[in-house]
Amino acid sequence: MTFQGMWADLLPVGRRADGGYQRFAWTAADMQCREWFRAGAARRGMDVETDRNGNLWAWLGAPGPDAVVTGSHLDSVPGGGAYDGPLGIVSAFAAIDALDRSALRRPLAVVAFTDEEGARFGVACLGSRLAAGVADPERTLALKDPDGTTLAEAMRAQGHDPSYVGPDPEALQRIGLFVELHVEQGRALEAPVGLGTAIWPHGRWRYDFRGEGNHAGTTALADRRDPMLSYAMTVLAARKRARLGGALATFGRVHVDPGGTNAIAVAVTGWLDSRAPDEATLAAVTAEIEQQAAERAARDGVTLTVTTESTSPEVSFPRVTLDWAAGVLGDPPRLPTGAGHDAGVLAAAGVPTAMLFVRNPTGVSHAPAEYAEEADCLAGVAALTRLLTAAAC
Amino acid sequence: MTFQGMWADLLPVGRRADGGYQRFAWTAADMQCREWFRAGAARRGMDVETDRNGNLWAWLGAPGPDAVVTGSHLDSVPGGGAYDGPLGIVSAFAAIDALDRSALRRPLAVVAFTDEEGARFGVACLGSRLAAGVADPERTLALKDPDGTTLAEAMRAQGHDPSYVGPDPEALQRIGLFVELHVEQGRALEAPVGLGTAIWPHGRWRYDFRGEGNHAGTTALADRRDPMLSYAMTVLAARKRARLGGALATFGRVHVDPGGTNAIAVAVTGWLDSRAPDEATLAAVTAEIEQQAAERAARDGVTLTVTTESTSPEVSFPRVTLDWAAGVLGDPPRLPTGAGHDAGVLAAAGVPTAMLFVRNPTGVSHAPAEYAEEADCLAGVAALTRLLTAAAC
Repeated sequence: MTFQGMWADLLPVGRRADGGYQRFAWTAADMQCREWFRAGAARRGMDVETDRNGNLWAWLGAPGPDAVVTGSHLDSVPGGGAYDGPLGIVSAFAAIDALDRSALRRPLAVVAFTDEEGARFGVACLGSRLAAGVADPERTLALKDPDGTTLAEAMRAQGHDPSYVGPDPEALQRIGLFVELHVEQGRALEAPVGLGTAIWPHGRWRYDFRGEGNHAGTTALADRRDPMLSYAMTVLAARKRARLGGALATFGRVHVDPGGTNAIAVAVTGWLDSRAPDEATLAAVTAEIEQQAAERAARDGVTLTVTTESTSPEVSFPRVTLDWAAGVLGDPPRLPTGAGHDAGVLAAAGVPTAMLFVRNPTGVSHAPAEYAEEADCLAGVAALTRLLTAAAC
Repeated sequence: MTFQGMWADLLPVGRRADGGYQRFAWTAADMQCREWFRAGAARRGMDVETDRNGNLWAWLGAPGPDAVVTGSHLDSVPGGGAYDGPLGIVSAFAAIDALDRSALRRPLAVVAFTDEEGARFGVACLGSRLAAGVADPERTLALKDPDGTTLAEAMRAQGHDPSYVGPDPEALQRIGLFVELHVEQGRALEAPVGLGTAIWPHGRWRYDFRGEGNHAGTTALADRRDPMLSYAMTVLAARKRARLGGALATFGRVHVDPGGTNAIAVAVTGWLDSRAPDEATLAAVTAEIEQQAAERAARDGVTLTVTTESTSPEVSFPRVTLDWAAGVLGDPPRLPTGAGHDAGVLAAAGVPTAMLFVRNPTGVSHAPAEYAEEADCLAGVAALTRLLTAAAC
C-alpha cells in the first residue's frame, strides 16, 4: 500500500463534522487507529507488540537489541489536524516499504506512542513518559478525564491491563536509534525537510479561581467576588508577560462553574500552556503570570490555586546523532521547536534520537486546517528511508 | 401538610452533590417538581390544568374570570438555590391552607410558570412570555439546549404537545390579580417582607469571537488570532463600563472551541447579562461594551458577532395594586429589583400584579448558599394570606 493509500485509509477515523480530529487515548477512535496500525504491520509481515504502557511496536525481524526505531503517535488534540502524529507513522511504514530489506543488519521497528497529546487526561506524552519512568504510574493511572473516568478505567475498558503500567527499561534499552518524523508546526521551515535541534522547555499549569456564586441581576458590583474577572485579567497578563519575555503563553481551555448566563460564577478554571527558548525564561515568565493573577484575585476577593500539571525541561537532541543525520541528508536546515514530542522524552532518557520535520506551508497546527504538501510528505519519506537505511543496513 | 412539610418534600428533587439545584425545564427533575405540584394540589382538592405553554394551574373552584392567582416557578439555574421560585409555590399552597375557604368570593389559583430561568434554552420567563405573546412561538420552539435538543423536542419527550404553544389570552385574561412571592436576591430588604416596585430593564447578549485555531507551542504571538484575548478584554470592559454607568454587567458563561490546553482557541462564545435602573442607561452601557469588544477583536484579528438573546424592558408594578397591597400589609418597605420575574412579564401585559419579597440575609442567590430564615418565610406566607384574603374574600 502506497503512502497515499495508507493516508486515505486513516483519514476518516475520528474525524468530526467540521473536519477536525477527535482521537483521544483509549477511546473508540483510538482503538480504530490501532486497528489500522495492526493491519499495516500485518501487511508487511511485522509482528505487533503492545507494551505495558499501551504503546504499539511493529517489528521487522525479532525485537532488539540495538534496534532502529521510527514512529510517532496516532492520537489528536480536540479538533486537531490530520498530520500531527499520523504523518510520522504513515511515513514510517512507507519508509519500511522503500528500503532494501535484504540488506538489514539491525532489527527495525515502527512505534506508535500512546496519548502523546494529553488531550484526555491532561498530561502530554504519557506513553513515552511512563516508559521512561518520568511519570509516576500511580498518580498517572489516577488522572481523570472530564467525565471522571480514570486512565486505569479507560485502559481496562479497552482490554488493557493497567497493573503493569510503569517504567519499561527493557522496551527503551533495545533502541539503538530513534527517529521521529513530524509535521512542522510553525512557519520556521522553508525547505521541504529539516532536522530538529531542541525542544523548548514547556509546561501546563491549572489556575483555579474560586469566588462566590450569586445572582447576576441583584448583586451589587461592590458585593461581588467574581472569579471570571480574575481569570480574564490573567489571560491578558499571560499574553503580555510572554511578549515582553520572549516566550509563549496561552489559555485555550476554561471551565466555569456553574456556567449560567444570569449567575456570577462560583469558580473558573483556566489552563495555562507556556514555553520559552530556555528554562530560566520560562520560570521567570510563568512566575510573573502567577504573581499578577494572585494580585488580581486578591483584589477580586477570589482565591487562586495554581497546580503544575506537567513540565518538560529543555531537550537538545544529541549532537552526534544530529550531525550524523545531517551528513546522511546533505545538511538540511536545522530548527528548534516549541512543541513537545515523544522524541524529546526519549532523548532526555538518553536514547540516541533524531527528529525530522516536514514543512508546514501555513504554520497552522492543532486545527483542522493543518496541512503539508504531498510532495513535501514524500520528501520526508525519502529522508526517513535514507536515515533508516544508513543506520540499519 | 405544613409549610415545613412541603418544603422538606420538595428539597431533594434535582439536588446535586454540592447542594446546588439542577431543575431545568422539561428534564426529569422538572417532571418530578411537577408531580410534587400535582400532589400538593390534589391534597387540597384543587384541579390541575396544564396550559398550552406547559404552565401548571391548580384551581380552587372553577377557573376564572376575575380570579386571584398566586405562584412562581419550580425550575432553577445551574447549581441554583432552593428558594428562587419554589418559595413562591410552597408559600402559595401554605396560604391556601391558611385562608378561610368558606368566605371566598372569587376563584383562586396557584400557578407554576415553566422555564422562568431560561437555563436550558437561553431565554428567561419562557412560559409567561409565550402566554403573553411577547415570545414568538416558532422561534422559541426552535431554541436548542447545549445538547442540540430543541424546546419542541424537549416538550414532546415529556408528553407535551408543542403544536399549541403560543399566545394564550384566555389563560391571562381570567386573572383579576396576580401576586408572586419571591425570595429577595440582594441585601436590599431589612424587614422580613417587602413589596416590589419595579424590575430593572435587562437583557442577554451572546458574544461570538472567532479567530484561528493553532498550536500553542509553535505559533508566534504575532501570528496568532486568539479569540480568548478578545473575550478576556471584553469581560473586564463590561465590568468597568457597568461600574462607570451605574449598571450591572456579568459574564458567567463561556464556551471555548476546541478547548484544548495546548491549542489556541478557534472560537470563544461568552454570554453577557446586563441590567440597569433605566433603559437609556442599559442601552448606553451595552453599546459601550460592544464597541470596546469590537475594537479589541479587530486588533486581535478576530471577528465578533453579537446576538441579542433576550431583552426585557423596565417594568413598574401598577401603582394602584401596589398601594392597595401596601394598605393591606401596613406599609412594608418597597424596593425595585434587578432580577426578572414572571410577575414582570404579566405586569407588562397589563395584568394587575404585585410582588412580595422575603428577606435574604446574605444576599446570595442563584447559588447553593441562597437562604431565607424560616421565620421570614412564614411572615411571607402570612402576608400572602392577607393579600389573598383581602382580594378574594
